[in-house]
Amino acid sequence: MEQQEEAKMEIVLKPIGIIRTPISGPGKGPRQGSESAVSGKLIVDEQYRDALLGLEKGWKIVILYWMHLAERDMLQVHPRGDRTRPLRGVFSTRSPQRPNPVSLDTVEITGIEGTVIDVIGLDAVDGTFLLDIKCTV
Amino acid sequence: MEQQEEAKMEIVLKPIGIIRTPISGPGKGPRQGSESAVSGKLIVDEQYRDALLGLEKGWKIVILYWMHLAERDMLQVHPRGDRTRPLRGVFSTRSPQRPNPVSLDTVEITGIEGTVIDVIGLDAVDGTFLLDIKCTV
Repeated sequence: MEQQEEAKMEIVLKPIGIIRTPISGPGKGPRQGSESAVSGKLIVDEQYRDALLGLEKGWKIVILYWMHLAERDMLQVHPRGDRTRPLRGVFSTRSPQRPNPVSLDTVEITGIEGTVIDVIGLDAVDGTFLLDIKCTV
Repeated sequence: MEQQEEAKMEIVLKPIGIIRTPISGPGKGPRQGSESAVSGKLIVDEQYRDALLGLEKGWKIVILYWMHLAERDMLQVHPRGDRTRPLRGVFSTRSPQRPNPVSLDTVEITGIEGTVIDVIGLDAVDGTFLLDIKCTV
């Protein structure tokens, strides 16, 4: 019964904006999960302006974003693409390859102007769709 | 151009399993973002068995899940539902109410048997759809 409901259920997400970073493609940025010193901008859609109320410079936030370049059918990977390392299940890694390629970064707000948020600490590729912003505490 | 692409783009997620916890409904568990000592089970679908390779008891993992009871059109909330506190944008809170109600918990694996993972540290309501598992490092 549950299995059936689950199989039928489709969860549809809507991008809330776009991420601008100097990272031009996969493997061009810092390793996933490591400290990143990459600065960029969260360009939030105007329709979500009211949802930004209260965010302030200096805050740490968690952002969720969609890794549109990921392969969703790959269940195992060589960690960090190193073929000398044994295969691991994607759920035991931070590989972008996974059934639902939603990633997260913790970033710090360095400025806000309207619906554009300057942040530092990004891993996302330029043009990535932003899905959510949460405070960390 | 970008705005148009964004508006057209729909991102569809598939549940990878279900979360079993003693938390029967919203507000019945620990506060979001606080330490939780709630134990439960991640019942991963059989088709994703290979993606679990490498996960071990004692590991901390991040789980993403779908807050199916959330209201997606609410852009501002009173923090923790306290009406004496001024409204805040949902992106400056951890409220379940948000355009894409995907939440995350960091939990510890206390046991694994097949595709069932015992964990401690849950905030999710019983029956919540599991979307992803990532290692924390």
